[in-house]
Amino acid sequence: MKKKILMTPGPTQVPPEVLTASSRPVIHHRTREYSELFARVIDGLKYVFRTDNDVLVFASSGTGAMESAVVNLCSPGDKVIVTACGKFGERWQQMAEAFGLDAVVLSYEYGTAVDPGDVARALADNRDASVVFTTHSETSTGVVNDIEAIGGIVAESDAVLVVDAVSGLGSAELNTDDWQVDVVVAGSQKALMIPPGLAFAAVSDKAWDLVERSRLPKYYFDWQKARDGVRRDDPTTPYTPAVSLTVALDAALQLIREEGIEAVIDRHRRLGRASREAVKALGLELFSPDDDACSSVTAVKVPEGVEDSELRRLMRDEYGVQCAGGQGSMKGKIFRIGHCGYYNYADIVATITALEQALNDLEYPVELGRGVARVVEVFGEDAS
Amino acid sequence: MKKKILMTPGPTQVPPEVLTASSRPVIHHRTREYSELFARVIDGLKYVFRTDNDVLVFASSGTGAMESAVVNLCSPGDKVIVTACGKFGERWQQMAEAFGLDAVVLSYEYGTAVDPGDVARALADNRDASVVFTTHSETSTGVVNDIEAIGGIVAESDAVLVVDAVSGLGSAELNTDDWQVDVVVAGSQKALMIPPGLAFAAVSDKAWDLVERSRLPKYYFDWQKARDGVRRDDPTTPYTPAVSLTVALDAALQLIREEGIEAVIDRHRRLGRASREAVKALGLELFSPDDDACSSVTAVKVPEGVEDSELRRLMRDEYGVQCAGGQGSMKGKIFRIGHCGYYNYADIVATITALEQALNDLEYPVELGRGVARVVEVFGEDAS
Repeated sequence: MKKKILMTPGPTQVPPEVLTASSRPVIHHRTREYSELFARVIDGLKYVFRTDNDVLVFASSGTGAMESAVVNLCSPGDKVIVTACGKFGERWQQMAEAFGLDAVVLSYEYGTAVDPGDVARALADNRDASVVFTTHSETSTGVVNDIEAIGGIVAESDAVLVVDAVSGLGSAELNTDDWQVDVVVAGSQKALMIPPGLAFAAVSDKAWDLVERSRLPKYYFDWQKARDGVRRDDPTTPYTPAVSLTVALDAALQLIREEGIEAVIDRHRRLGRASREAVKALGLELFSPDDDACSSVTAVKVPEGVEDSELRRLMRDEYGVQCAGGQGSMKGKIFRIGHCGYYNYADIVATITALEQALNDLEYPVELGRGVARVVEVFGEDAS
Repeated sequence: MKKKILMTPGPTQVPPEVLTASSRPVIHHRTREYSELFARVIDGLKYVFRTDNDVLVFASSGTGAMESAVVNLCSPGDKVIVTACGKFGERWQQMAEAFGLDAVVLSYEYGTAVDPGDVARALADNRDASVVFTTHSETSTGVVNDIEAIGGIVAESDAVLVVDAVSGLGSAELNTDDWQVDVVVAGSQKALMIPPGLAFAAVSDKAWDLVERSRLPKYYFDWQKARDGVRRDDPTTPYTPAVSLTVALDAALQLIREEGIEAVIDRHRRLGRASREAVKALGLELFSPDDDACSSVTAVKVPEGVEDSELRRLMRDEYGVQCAGGQGSMKGKIFRIGHCGYYNYADIVATITALEQALNDLEYPVELGRGVARVVEVFGEDAS
């Protein structure tokens, strides 16, 4: 037996009661039983998204929901503004290119956040821009952008704000309606605590107006068909839904409701802070900002003289803790501790223990126990 | 307790060992463990598709895989040939329209099959047609088209043949390579015996040539990116895969291999025949052809004086057997017994029993036990 924990920013750990729900006998999707379940799931999603807008559900990964925003909001050649401060911001950029949009790209060094002032300037300089695509929690770096500020800025323009919250929804603060976010896209395999395969889009009235004018071709990800389904008294999806994942989501949303969304976000804030404090106590350098907003993923610079792949191999194979490496140009330079979803202090203690042990095995100078002690201290402070 | 069986043509019953596999703790997809699993799954899919071509895997419903064929093979304005002999053939037609193709549509009355001669004539009349879109098992009617004949015809042209085998793969004969089918798209929730949420596309060299010339925009369903993933030594997907469904598929493919694909198809042929014979013995009229090829779904005309919704409600609520109704214009006129996937003679016996009892409850004249006796007879003949 080797007890393992998954500390990657997606997929994440799935609670046993959710795994069990996902393995119930499959039910048919055109039944009252399924409609009741789906209605409950949509209500639960609205609770987590903090929105009264329509929430649409797709059988796809989060990238599918991102694509759905592009093809439902845009027409060929449309001017759009894209912020890119990491791999997932760059994905908006790639999609804009793939779908023939005219993208004004605001690029930021990996590890830094989008400057909302830049968005204001880009909107002022491009009054014909119809959409602003940005990222909430940038999974590749751990940065969480100031969506509240960006929301206020975009709301004053005619543009629609689209936020990729795949890793941030339910782990970092995101108040869709209060912050005037028109579209939030998200995935199932992060803080929603179910396996990958479901994706979501919350869509405001301002966005629906743009949807009606969109001329990019679409079929599977057609929002209007999905809306017709969710607005029914017996809500449904246009195509066969991922039934077992939806059943799992129902169970996971129940857990989130029991804890309360404010408490869930606060728990993540503490997990992030404990991770950062422990990393610093070990003398390592943070890559993600040392900021309470960054509560989904903690990115750490691989210390001088240490081989990233070997460090993570030891953590995983010897100490049972799987972290993620860097992506793209960050490969080998950083590693990432994901703590969005089904995580508590014990997971952070285990992760920091594994990190200390692995560094020690690699003869990197660490005072064993120092990081873990800091985790406990931080949790103690927070509890008081 | 109410013991229930799902006799719908998707989702279908999932074997307990497959359900159990789907609820294993989620593993990360960028690991050797997952690559080994995914390599095994692709091998198993090639075995079921009877192909040496690339098989690509998407987190989506079968409709997503259909769309992937359109956007990867076509350019705006392309002339294509579409056969429509039911709801799913019409879906090709709707997609061709949504993506701005110039579709020559061969339409057939619901319940009848595509005439391969019409495809030959359409190709002769439209030498610039680049793709023929057709349907293997038309789930809405129970018809299984003669893909072998259509394959031979299309192979002599420059056009690429795309077959929707969502409900037919693994339940009706389909020899992708021998029959010269360029592209087969399929879903997970039918004869592959797992919950909905995965979809597949098998792609020939002739199709890949067309893919390189395709100019419809695409991102999530980009076949070239998916091919780069599956051709690696450590195969992977471009975006986060539906991990738990892939684990389930690995278990289901193992069951199919143990039985052997020829035996699996033969079992379905017998299930179809027993269903048809029983229906006829009860004096009801078949809607799907009385043909051994139609081994996925048996469609039955709702008898005069019987209310379809009440018949199926009784079968489901009183006798625990859930069948499907008609779709679109067939609603209320037919009901459908799905037997693609995890089904054996006992499921047919139960279904026919429920049908007899429900008809009897509705005071429709049936000789109780006559249909069931016919099922047993047919299985006896087949066994000898």
